[in-house]
Amino acid sequence: MYSAREKAAILVEALPYIKKFAGRTVVIKYGGHAMGESDDDVLTDVVLLKYVGLRPVLVHGGGPEISGWLRKVGKKSDFIGGLRITDAETMEIAEMVLTGKLSQKIVSSLNRLGVRAVGLSGKDADLLVAVRKKGLVRRPDGGEELLDIGAVGEITAVNPELIEILFREGYVPVVAPVATDGRGETYNVNADHAAGMLAGAVGADKLVLLTDVEGILRDPRDPASLISVVRAGEVEELKRSGVLTGGMLPKVDCCVQALDQGVSEAHILDGRVPHAILLEIFTDSGIGTMVVP
Amino acid sequence: MYSAREKAAILVEALPYIKKFAGRTVVIKYGGHAMGESDDDVLTDVVLLKYVGLRPVLVHGGGPEISGWLRKVGKKSDFIGGLRITDAETMEIAEMVLTGKLSQKIVSSLNRLGVRAVGLSGKDADLLVAVRKKGLVRRPDGGEELLDIGAVGEITAVNPELIEILFREGYVPVVAPVATDGRGETYNVNADHAAGMLAGAVGADKLVLLTDVEGILRDPRDPASLISVVRAGEVEELKRSGVLTGGMLPKVDCCVQALDQGVSEAHILDGRVPHAILLEIFTDSGIGTMVVP
Amino acid sequence: MYSAREKAAILVEALPYIKKFAGRTVVIKYGGHAMGESDDDVLTDVVLLKYVGLRPVLVHGGGPEISGWLRKVGKKSDFIGGLRITDAETMEIAEMVLTGKLSQKIVSSLNRLGVRAVGLSGKDADLLVAVRKKGLVRRPDGGEELLDIGAVGEITAVNPELIEILFREGYVPVVAPVATDGRGETYNVNADHAAGMLAGAVGADKLVLLTDVEGILRDPRDPASLISVVRAGEVEELKRSGVLTGGMLPKVDCCVQALDQGVSEAHILDGRVPHAILLEIFTDSGIGTMVVP
Amino acid sequence: MYSAREKAAILVEALPYIKKFAGRTVVIKYGGHAMGESDDDVLTDVVLLKYVGLRPVLVHGGGPEISGWLRKVGKKSDFIGGLRITDAETMEIAEMVLTGKLSQKIVSSLNRLGVRAVGLSGKDADLLVAVRKKGLVRRPDGGEELLDIGAVGEITAVNPELIEILFREGYVPVVAPVATDGRGETYNVNADHAAGMLAGAVGADKLVLLTDVEGILRDPRDPASLISVVRAGEVEELKRSGVLTGGMLPKVDCCVQALDQGVSEAHILDGRVPHAILLEIFTDSGIGTMVVP
Amino acid sequence: MYSAREKAAILVEALPYIKKFAGRTVVIKYGGHAMGESDDDVLTDVVLLKYVGLRPVLVHGGGPEISGWLRKVGKKSDFIGGLRITDAETMEIAEMVLTGKLSQKIVSSLNRLGVRAVGLSGKDADLLVAVRKKGLVRRPDGGEELLDIGAVGEITAVNPELIEILFREGYVPVVAPVATDGRGETYNVNADHAAGMLAGAVGADKLVLLTDVEGILRDPRDPASLISVVRAGEVEELKRSGVLTGGMLPKVDCCVQALDQGVSEAHILDGRVPHAILLEIFTDSGIGTMVVP
Amino acid sequence: MYSAREKAAILVEALPYIKKFAGRTVVIKYGGHAMGESDDDVLTDVVLLKYVGLRPVLVHGGGPEISGWLRKVGKKSDFIGGLRITDAETMEIAEMVLTGKLSQKIVSSLNRLGVRAVGLSGKDADLLVAVRKKGLVRRPDGGEELLDIGAVGEITAVNPELIEILFREGYVPVVAPVATDGRGETYNVNADHAAGMLAGAVGADKLVLLTDVEGILRDPRDPASLISVVRAGEVEELKRSGVLTGGMLPKVDCCVQALDQGVSEAHILDGRVPHAILLEIFTDSGIGTMVVP
Repeated sequence: MYSAREKAAILVEALPYIKKFAGRTVVIKYGGHAMGESDDDVLTDVVLLKYVGLRPVLVHGGGPEISGWLRKVGKKSDFIGGLRITDAETMEIAEMVLTGKLSQKIVSSLNRLGVRAVGLSGKDADLLVAVRKKGLVRRPDGGEELLDIGAVGEITAVNPELIEILFREGYVPVVAPVATDGRGETYNVNADHAAGMLAGAVGADKLVLLTDVEGILRDPRDPASLISVVRAGEVEELKRSGVLTGGMLPKVDCCVQALDQGVSEAHILDGRVPHAILLEIFTDSGIGTMVVP
Repeated sequence: MYSAREKAAILVEALPYIKKFAGRTVVIKYGGHAMGESDDDVLTDVVLLKYVGLRPVLVHGGGPEISGWLRKVGKKSDFIGGLRITDAETMEIAEMVLTGKLSQKIVSSLNRLGVRAVGLSGKDADLLVAVRKKGLVRRPDGGEELLDIGAVGEITAVNPELIEILFREGYVPVVAPVATDGRGETYNVNADHAAGMLAGAVGADKLVLLTDVEGILRDPRDPASLISVVRAGEVEELKRSGVLTGGMLPKVDCCVQALDQGVSEAHILDGRVPHAILLEIFTDSGIGTMVVP
Repeated sequence: MYSAREKAAILVEALPYIKKFAGRTVVIKYGGHAMGESDDDVLTDVVLLKYVGLRPVLVHGGGPEISGWLRKVGKKSDFIGGLRITDAETMEIAEMVLTGKLSQKIVSSLNRLGVRAVGLSGKDADLLVAVRKKGLVRRPDGGEELLDIGAVGEITAVNPELIEILFREGYVPVVAPVATDGRGETYNVNADHAAGMLAGAVGADKLVLLTDVEGILRDPRDPASLISVVRAGEVEELKRSGVLTGGMLPKVDCCVQALDQGVSEAHILDGRVPHAILLEIFTDSGIGTMVVP
Repeated sequence: MYSAREKAAILVEALPYIKKFAGRTVVIKYGGHAMGESDDDVLTDVVLLKYVGLRPVLVHGGGPEISGWLRKVGKKSDFIGGLRITDAETMEIAEMVLTGKLSQKIVSSLNRLGVRAVGLSGKDADLLVAVRKKGLVRRPDGGEELLDIGAVGEITAVNPELIEILFREGYVPVVAPVATDGRGETYNVNADHAAGMLAGAVGADKLVLLTDVEGILRDPRDPASLISVVRAGEVEELKRSGVLTGGMLPKVDCCVQALDQGVSEAHILDGRVPHAILLEIFTDSGIGTMVVP
Repeated sequence: MYSAREKAAILVEALPYIKKFAGRTVVIKYGGHAMGESDDDVLTDVVLLKYVGLRPVLVHGGGPEISGWLRKVGKKSDFIGGLRITDAETMEIAEMVLTGKLSQKIVSSLNRLGVRAVGLSGKDADLLVAVRKKGLVRRPDGGEELLDIGAVGEITAVNPELIEILFREGYVPVVAPVATDGRGETYNVNADHAAGMLAGAVGADKLVLLTDVEGILRDPRDPASLISVVRAGEVEELKRSGVLTGGMLPKVDCCVQALDQGVSEAHILDGRVPHAILLEIFTDSGIGTMVVP
Repeated sequence: MYSAREKAAILVEALPYIKKFAGRTVVIKYGGHAMGESDDDVLTDVVLLKYVGLRPVLVHGGGPEISGWLRKVGKKSDFIGGLRITDAETMEIAEMVLTGKLSQKIVSSLNRLGVRAVGLSGKDADLLVAVRKKGLVRRPDGGEELLDIGAVGEITAVNPELIEILFREGYVPVVAPVATDGRGETYNVNADHAAGMLAGAVGADKLVLLTDVEGILRDPRDPASLISVVRAGEVEELKRSGVLTGGMLPKVDCCVQALDQGVSEAHILDGRVPHAILLEIFTDSGIGTMVVP
C-alpha cells in the first residue's frame, strides 16, 4: 500500500512520541462492551507499546460473556442499583469466565503476537484486596437503602510487587477484575476501578479506559461536541450540569482517583476506533477525552 | 496434646531432613481423585516446605470437577482409549474449571496459610507447549487405530523461566494442566505428565505424585505388599509381570521420564494419608513407592 | 517414640512460629554458669533456628573456665564490687580461654551439627569497642569510691558490618566477650552486655539471655512466682521493691538497653531446661521472663 | 500528510521488524563520501534504532574533510597504491579532523535528537590497536614493492569493553577511525575496516556500510543489475570475473571478515537514499547488497 | 640512587596519606601554560593516584596550542577583556586542538603508563552545558559594555553520569574544556572553571589547579611570601587589598565555587615543580596554596 | 630525613610494581622464630600491600610461645622425629595460644595500623581440614617406625569460601595453624604447610615464607652463596647434593606443593630484614630465594 519511503517517513514521525514514552507504564482497561472484533487491534497496539519500550498492563472486563455463561447454566441474574446480585454460584461462574477464559484468551493472543504475557487474578499473591460492597437501592417510598448484593467488592488495597517483578523481567501482565478479602472470600470488582487502582499502585504514567463511546460529549447526540481535555477540578461541575451521566460517571471517577494517586493522565478512548491506543500515544490526533490533574 | 518438651524433641528430630532438603525444588502433583477433604493437609504441607527452605511447585488435576461442569451445561462426554474426546466446548469448560476455579481455589488457600501463591496456566508465557495427541482405539477387527480426539495435547517443551523468576522472588507457583501449541490452540494435558515434565525442566530434586492408592502393590488386594523402592531399570519387568497395570502405568512412566531428565527421586504417595508429603520428606517412615534411577 | 503422624502434627503446629520468625535475627547469650551439659541442646536449637530461616548469633561467657585456668597457672584473683581485678596476665589468660578455647569449641560443635560457624573476638574488625571501666567500692566509712580494676571494659560502640556480611553469606557468628579500645588495649567485657549491645547494633528482633535460674521470680524461693512479662517501664519499680536483686539486676538492665536500641523482645530463659530456645520461639509455652518495651 | 489511521497502520507494519531486531547490535559505518546532506537522515535513523531497542554504534570516515584541512594549512598529500602517505603532520591533522571535529559533530547532532552519544577515538582505552601498514607499489620494472607510507595502520586487535559498558548504560558510541599501537604511536585506519573489526569484537548482528553507490552491480552502468544477496563463498568468483573491482573490493572484504568473526549479516547500502538504514531494517524493501555467510 | 631499605622506608612513610585518600575523587586541571615538559611528571602522578586507590579526573587547557594552530591557518585573534573573540572558524580550530589533539595525546600517554584513559569533550553525553558569555570591555569614555565575543561559554550545568560510570568501571576520564548548549552550539569554556564545576558535580574531595606560579604570594616578587592556606571567607579581603590580582583572581574564584558545591579542599599548585601532585597528596610538604571552606 | 622530592621520586619508582601486583593475592607466613621485634615491619608491609591494591592473607606460627605456656602450666613436651607429641592438654594450650593470643595480637595491630583484620582458626567454617599424622622415628636397630604423636594433623582439604568473602569485602584474614577433622577433633598443623595449601586453594599469585635465615645458601656458612632462584625441577637435585637440609627441606616442599596447585611464585625471605616483604614485592632488590615452576 505504502512505498518504502512513506513507511520510513512515518516511522520517523513517531520518534518523538517513542522517546517521550520510553520506560513509561500504561494501564489499559478494555473489555466488556469494548471487547470483540477490535481485539486484535488492541492487542497489536499493546505489543507495539511493549516493543518500543513502554510497560503496558491490561485489565479486562467481561460482563456480556459472564451473562452468556449464566444463561448457559440456567442461572438468572437480578440487579440492584445497576450492580448484579452475585450469589456464590454466580461468583464461581464469573471467576471462571474472567480468569479461566477471557484472561487466557488475551494471554494466548499476546504470546502469539510476540510478547510473553501472564494472566493474573486479583487473588494471585493477593494482588487486589477488596471488602464487600453494598448496593444502593431507592425504595418505593423515595428513601434509599443499602442492601447486601453478595460477592461484589470494593478494592481497598493493591499489592503491586508481583506486577513490578513481571515488568522488570519483561512480561506483560493481564489482570482479571477478581479480588480477594485475604481470608478466602472472592469478589467481583469493577474493571475500570481495578485499572485505576492498579495504575496508582504501580506508579503508572497513563491510565487508558477503552469504551464504546467517543469520549465525554457535551451533547450526547453530537459526536462533534467531544470534550478533549477535562481537568479534575471541573468534574464536579460537569456532573452538576448533567453533561456527565450514566455509565460515564464511574469511569470519570476512576480517572480522578487515579490522578489523585499520582497517575499523570487518564484517557477515555473509543475502543471501536482501530488502533485507538497507538493513535493516542504516538500521534497528535487527539481522540477521546483526556482527564488531567 | 503434646507437652512442650515433646514438641521440642520432634522439631529436633526433623532437623536432619530440613538440612538435607534446604534449597531443593519439589514438584507436587495432586488432585483429580486425590483432591478433596485432604486439601488442607496437602496445602499446609506445601506451606511448611516453603518455610523450611524448599521450593515447592504444585500441579493439580481436576477430572471429576470438569465432569461435573460438563453435566451442568448438559454436555455429554465420550471417551476413546481412556481419553476424553475434547471438542472445542469441552476444552473451553475444562480450561475454565482448571484455570479459573481450581487453581484459584488453591492459590487462595495457600495465600491464607501464609505464602504468596500465583496461579499459572501452561499458556502463561508459553509455560507448557504441546502438540495434538491421537487416541489409540482397538477396532472390532482386533486392529488398532489412532483417532482424532480433539484438544488433548502431549507436552513437547517447557519454558521454565517464569517459574524460576517466581522461585527467586519467593512465590509458590500453582500450575493448571493446560497447554498451548504456541499458535493459539489450547490443549488439555495429563497433570501427572505436566508435573513430570515441569520437574525435569526446572531441575527439581523430587517429583511427588499424590494418588488415592497406597503406591505400587505386588498384590493389589494386599496393602502389605507395597513395593517401597523401584529402580527405573526394573519398571519394564514389572509391566511384563503384570504388577504394573491400569492407572499406575502412566504414573510410573512419568516418574521414569522425570528421572531421565535429571530429577533425583520420584514418589507415588497416598494422598489420603494425612500429611503424606511431610511424612515422606521429614521422617524415616517410608510411605508409598519411590522410583529412583 | 512418636508415630509418623504425631511427628507430622507437631511439625505443622510449629508452622505459625516458623512463619512469624522467618528472616528474623536473634542474639543468644549463653555460658558462664549456663554452659555445660546442656550445650548440645542449645547448639542444636541454634542450628534448627538457622535452618528454618532465622539468623542466630551466639555470644558466650566463660567465667568458671577462666577461673580454672587462672588457678592452673597459680594466679590469684581479687574482686572489687563483683568485678574481677584484671591485670595484664589475667586478661591474657581470659582472652585465650574465651577466644582460643570456648569460641572454638562452640564453632566446632556447630559445624559438626551442619551449619558453618565462625568464631569472632570483639577485636576482629573492631567489632566491640570499649573504654576502661572503674570498679565501684564501698569504703569502710560508708562512702563509695571508683577504683581501677584493670582491663575491664564497658562497650561504647559496635561495628556490626562483619556480622552482617556473615549473615548475608549464611554463616553463624559466635562472639567472645573481648573488646578493643581501638588503640591496642584489650578488655574483658560482660557477655550479657555484649549480647545486648550487639542485638541493638545488628537490628535484632530478639535478645535471649540464657541463665541458670527460672527467670524473674517475685519470691525467689517459689518457682511458681515467675513473672512472665515485664514492661521496660516497670523495671525501676521492681528494683525499688526488691524483687530485682543480685545477678538479675544487670541482666534486666541489658534487656532494657537492647529494647531502647530497637530490639523488639528480650528474654531471660532458664538454660537448664532442655531446648529452652526452641520452646520459647516455636511454642506457646511461656518459659522464663520476657522484657518488652 | 498522512491520516492518523495511516500512521497507525504503518507503525503496526513495522512491528515484526522491531521484534526481530530488539536487543541486537548494529555497527554502521558512514561518512567519507556518504556523509553530507543526508546526515540528518542517517542520524535520525540511528536514534530510532536506539529507541526501538537496538544497540547502534557509528563508525565514521572523513577523507574529504581531512583533505580540505590539509589544503588549508598548505600541506600537500602524496598517494602510493591508493593510500595517503601520512607523515607526522598529516596524521596530526587527520586525527584532529576525525576525532575533534567529525566525531563531535555527530555526537552533538545525536544528543540533540534525543540520545546520549559519546565520541571515542580508537586510542581511548586502546579500543583499536594497529600495526604499521606498508603501501604496495608497482615499480617501473613491473615488480611490486612495499614502501613505508607513514602512520597508516592495520587493525590487529579490538578492546571492546568500553563499548560494552556504554551499551549497557544506554549510550550510543561514535567511533573515529584512529588507532594506537599501544606504545604511543597513532595510526590512521580505514573506517570500513574499523567498522568490520568492531562488529566482530562486540558480537554485532549486523554490519552496515553506507556508501555512495547502489550496492554491487553486475553491470556498473546499470542500477537494475544490483545483486541483492552475495554469499561469502561467492566473493572470490565475483572478483575473478571482474564484477567486484575498485573501491567495492575492500568493502566486500570487510564484510566477509566480519562474517568470519560471527556477524550474521553485512550490508552495503546507498547512503544517498533517504533513511536507507530504516528501510533496510524495518521493511521488506531490499535495498543495496547483503553479504551473508 | 637509593638503597632498597631507603625505598621501603619512604613507601612506608606514604602509607598514612594513601590510607587517607583511598577511594577519594580528585579533579586535576592542568595545561595551558603549565603543560609542556612536566607532562610526564603530571601524568605519572595521575597513574600513581589511580593505582593507590584514588579516582582522578583530568581537565586540560590548551591556549598556547590553539594560538599556534590559528597562526598556522593564518587566522588572527582579537581579544576583548582578556577573552578571545571566538568566531565559528576559531571555535572549530579550538575544538579540534583541544578534543582531537591534546585530549588524545594525554589519553595515549596515560594508557601507555598503564591505566585505561578515555578522552571526553563536554559535548559527549552533554557533559558540560553552557550559555553564551559576553565580554566586558571598558569604553574610551570610561564606561563598561558587554560585547558579543562569539562562542565563549559559561558552564551552567554538568551531567556527571558518564564520569561516574567510567569511575565505577575503573577508567580515567580526560576532559577537554568544550561545552554544548544542548541545541547544537559549541562553546569554548575556561578550563579552570570546567574543572571546578566538574569537581562539584562529581562530589570530588579535592580540586587541584596546576599553574605556572608558586601559589598566592603576598608579595608577587617574593616566593617566600607564599600563603599556604586561604579560607574562602578571606578571599574578598585579599581581593580588596590587592594581593589577589590578574590571572590568579579567576582561579581563586573557581576554588571558592567548588568549595560552595561541597568539594573539601582546592589547591593552586606550581605545575613546574616535579611531581607537584604527589607531593601535595602524599607528603606533609605544603606546596602551593590551599583554599578551604 | 628525605626531601619531598626524593620521596616523590621513590613513590614513582614503585609504580611499576604496584601496577604489576594490583589485585593479586599474596599468602604470607610468618612467625615462629621470625616473629618478634620485626613484627611491626611485617604488619606495616601487609597494610601497605592492602592499600596499594593487593589481597594479603597472613598465616602465623607460634612454636616458642606455645612452649612458653606449656612450661607455665608445668607441662613437659616430648618430641618424636622433630614433631611435638601433642596430647589433649598440649593441644588445648596450643590452640589457646595460637588462636586466642597470637592471632588476636596480630589482628589488633593490623586494625590499629588502619585495615580491618579478622582472626580465623582453621576450624572456623572448616577452613582447614586435616587427618592425623604419624611421627616417623628411627629405632635403635636402624629401622623406622610410624608412631602416634597425638593431635598433629596433615591438611587434606581447604574450604576457601570464607577467605574469599573476606577478600571481596575488603578484610585482611589472619589464620592460625589449627585444623579440624570435621568430626570435632582439633589438630595442630605446620604453619608453612597451612600457608602453602591456603595459597593454592585461594588461587594466590605469591606465597611468602618469612624465616630467620637469608634463604637457601649453597654454603650455609656463607651468606654470599644465596641462591636467588630455584626451579621446582631442581629441588630434588639440591636435596641429593645436601644443599637443602634441616628446616629448609619442608619449607621448600611447601613451596613446590603450592606451585603445583597454581601459585606463580613462592619466596623464602629473611624476616629479620626490615620490610623484607616490601623489598621483595616493590623493588628489584632480589632478597631471599624465589622458587618458580
